[in-house]
Amino acid sequence: MSAASRVKRLLPKADVKVFERSGFVSYAPCGIPYLLGGVVGSLDKLVHYSVDFFRERRGIDVHVHASVEDAGKDYVEVSEGGRSKRYDWDVLVLATGARPVVPPIPGVELEGVLTLRNLEDGAKAKEMLARAERVGVVGGGYIGLEVAENLVRLGKKVLMFEMLPHIMPTLDHDVAKRVERELVEYGVELHLSEKVVEFGGGERVSRVVTEKGSYDVDLVFMAVGVRPDTALAERLGLKLGETRAVWTDSRMRTSLENVYAVGDVAETVNLVTGKRDWIPLAPAANKMGFVAGSNIAGMDIEFPGVVGTAITKAFGLEIGRTGLSEAQAKRLDYDVVSVSISAKTRAGYYPEPKAIKVKLVAEAESGRLLGAQVVGYEGVLARINTVAALLPWGATVRDLFFADLAYAPPFAPVWDPLVVAARVLMKKLH
Amino acid sequence: MSAASRVKRLLPKADVKVFERSGFVSYAPCGIPYLLGGVVGSLDKLVHYSVDFFRERRGIDVHVHASVEDAGKDYVEVSEGGRSKRYDWDVLVLATGARPVVPPIPGVELEGVLTLRNLEDGAKAKEMLARAERVGVVGGGYIGLEVAENLVRLGKKVLMFEMLPHIMPTLDHDVAKRVERELVEYGVELHLSEKVVEFGGGERVSRVVTEKGSYDVDLVFMAVGVRPDTALAERLGLKLGETRAVWTDSRMRTSLENVYAVGDVAETVNLVTGKRDWIPLAPAANKMGFVAGSNIAGMDIEFPGVVGTAITKAFGLEIGRTGLSEAQAKRLDYDVVSVSISAKTRAGYYPEPKAIKVKLVAEAESGRLLGAQVVGYEGVLARINTVAALLPWGATVRDLFFADLAYAPPFAPVWDPLVVAARVLMKKLH
Repeated sequence: MSAASRVKRLLPKADVKVFERSGFVSYAPCGIPYLLGGVVGSLDKLVHYSVDFFRERRGIDVHVHASVEDAGKDYVEVSEGGRSKRYDWDVLVLATGARPVVPPIPGVELEGVLTLRNLEDGAKAKEMLARAERVGVVGGGYIGLEVAENLVRLGKKVLMFEMLPHIMPTLDHDVAKRVERELVEYGVELHLSEKVVEFGGGERVSRVVTEKGSYDVDLVFMAVGVRPDTALAERLGLKLGETRAVWTDSRMRTSLENVYAVGDVAETVNLVTGKRDWIPLAPAANKMGFVAGSNIAGMDIEFPGVVGTAITKAFGLEIGRTGLSEAQAKRLDYDVVSVSISAKTRAGYYPEPKAIKVKLVAEAESGRLLGAQVVGYEGVLARINTVAALLPWGATVRDLFFADLAYAPPFAPVWDPLVVAARVLMKKLH
Repeated sequence: MSAASRVKRLLPKADVKVFERSGFVSYAPCGIPYLLGGVVGSLDKLVHYSVDFFRERRGIDVHVHASVEDAGKDYVEVSEGGRSKRYDWDVLVLATGARPVVPPIPGVELEGVLTLRNLEDGAKAKEMLARAERVGVVGGGYIGLEVAENLVRLGKKVLMFEMLPHIMPTLDHDVAKRVERELVEYGVELHLSEKVVEFGGGERVSRVVTEKGSYDVDLVFMAVGVRPDTALAERLGLKLGETRAVWTDSRMRTSLENVYAVGDVAETVNLVTGKRDWIPLAPAANKMGFVAGSNIAGMDIEFPGVVGTAITKAFGLEIGRTGLSEAQAKRLDYDVVSVSISAKTRAGYYPEPKAIKVKLVAEAESGRLLGAQVVGYEGVLARINTVAALLPWGATVRDLFFADLAYAPPFAPVWDPLVVAARVLMKKLH
């Protein structure tokens, strides 16, 4: 919708059609976990703008419950209203997003083994939760974490299964451990290094079986990751990148003339590594749509890439990361130095200073910042965004130390936690 | 103390002496307003480390109640314990700070007309407040604002006098107006464009007289700004910069060999304008001490300069700024474009999104960001520090738009308020 809106704004006479498989456009999938927990009161609140709004106010010809089954160099085949229709195009924007990975575990097809992708999935899950007490969450990434928090909020018993030794694979082990403590404190039953091998039950799931044990459950959320939904791209013969997402250039063009790809289906560049990367998150997705729409309308704008910034919340704990983790950097053969410091979020004398932990990762030789991870009970957004802003510039640890960050007693100590971390890390560079 | 501690850490055998006029070192003057309001329970909480700590644990020879009356090229004359003593030095660090401006208004010498500089001033003010109901605050800058908030917290009637048409001279008029509304909502009686011409009363102040009227008060806080305390620097014959603070190079050296100046007495460079500037704030002051101490101990570190980042809070409202305001930029003859947008701090569907207002200032031709002002009920630190981090790199509005900022429903909308502002401002650049 970001691309469609942009084209229509710049070229009001363009005939812009949108085909959407589900019944909603312009909705917030990131809000689905909070819908489950009742933090968001109803499904319609997750819809930014209605289909009618786009049709009537923006002049975009939106087709919902319209599944694009095939596509060629100047047409799409759309299944809608029980019939198949063909539409011609001059320019095509592929925004098919990502789909949840469903590993071929025996029993995964049972009723009550759920994934969350669109609003309909959220509505169905919410309904099924009403009759569930013990809920399994398979996967300890962002979605698993947010679902777990919201299930605990509902009073459910949550069992989280992660086959790796720690949750949150984009965080380093030491930082992830801090998050795990928070989950356990709030009553989540955490099963680490425990691979799920089977879902048991009759028609409906009633058991999660792992390599180590068997656990009764009434419902299971699969949250083991997502993959770019490239089915249509492959039918079009689009080049996929090394990440298996659709290859795009900086203008969001694919390998096929007049075909753009944006959002979670599209590959981009990591500005820290300079390599191709696929980090499917909403802000970049929306900006890619803006860029594609602008270029389609005759402007010339480049999407520069991402650094991999993300934030979430697990109960009281805010969790942010940007750039490379230490483990990621080492896998990419960087010569890495890192530091973790514990600090407070306010001047010590100001009431209720909160604990915050900052981990910085840098290149040993040059001192260039590679990434940061921050967990704490407030102020994580400020610290993560500061580092995220610096990363594309090749800023060093020293640059961070000397960054002119805001200070007043209610907001930070005189030596901001980021600056303290940078100061300690500078020593390792000498 | 930052410089002294740094030298002593790197050169444990160095004979480091500190002379301090007041009875405290390593204290937090920024906390004094909160001491008045009772947010900080007692004066000792504003002392980070005691004199004994520095003497015994860090081996620094701290002299308190020791006023340096004169200095020459290898000595200082110190008045302490009722006597004058002479100490020789090889290296001298001048950290005399800033002093409150006391304009020559008739009656300004009356009892009950107060300034806040050190902890003793805070203690005295707190004592006098016990017998005051109506309190005048002259000056609507950071200190005036923080004092006003804390006086209202104590139940005092606060009258604020500002001779300019708006408070907060480092903010633009439109942004300052938002802050003024907050003050008025909380009961501050605001007198703008109203110059104080006299303080009336017998021994003790009982009246503020302005060009427009006369107001009964029991106490007055003067908070009309600060000046670098260069008395000693002038005795030493140090070069003052164009800002009238002590000229320093990037290593914090003054014009005289082996004499350094750091903190609020020292001039530095504004990284946005490239010009000399004097912006006396605590984080830069501490880092200057670190830099001077490092260089004295034989390292070679440069203090790059500041961009003028500051934050404060007035009642519920968080107020941040960095770089140049539109007014400042115009005074410096930049060809300026700017934008102000209103947004929310969380996804719209997430509970309790707060209002936030972002103003961006940029150079029209190049699109280079010159500054930002942000006011809102949460999340101001994150937005201000993001722009503060970008400013030294010559980042453009487009760079800000494409910054990979963190998003999750509890922390930000998908289009962060900063990104929305950048998007709108980009249009003015085409």
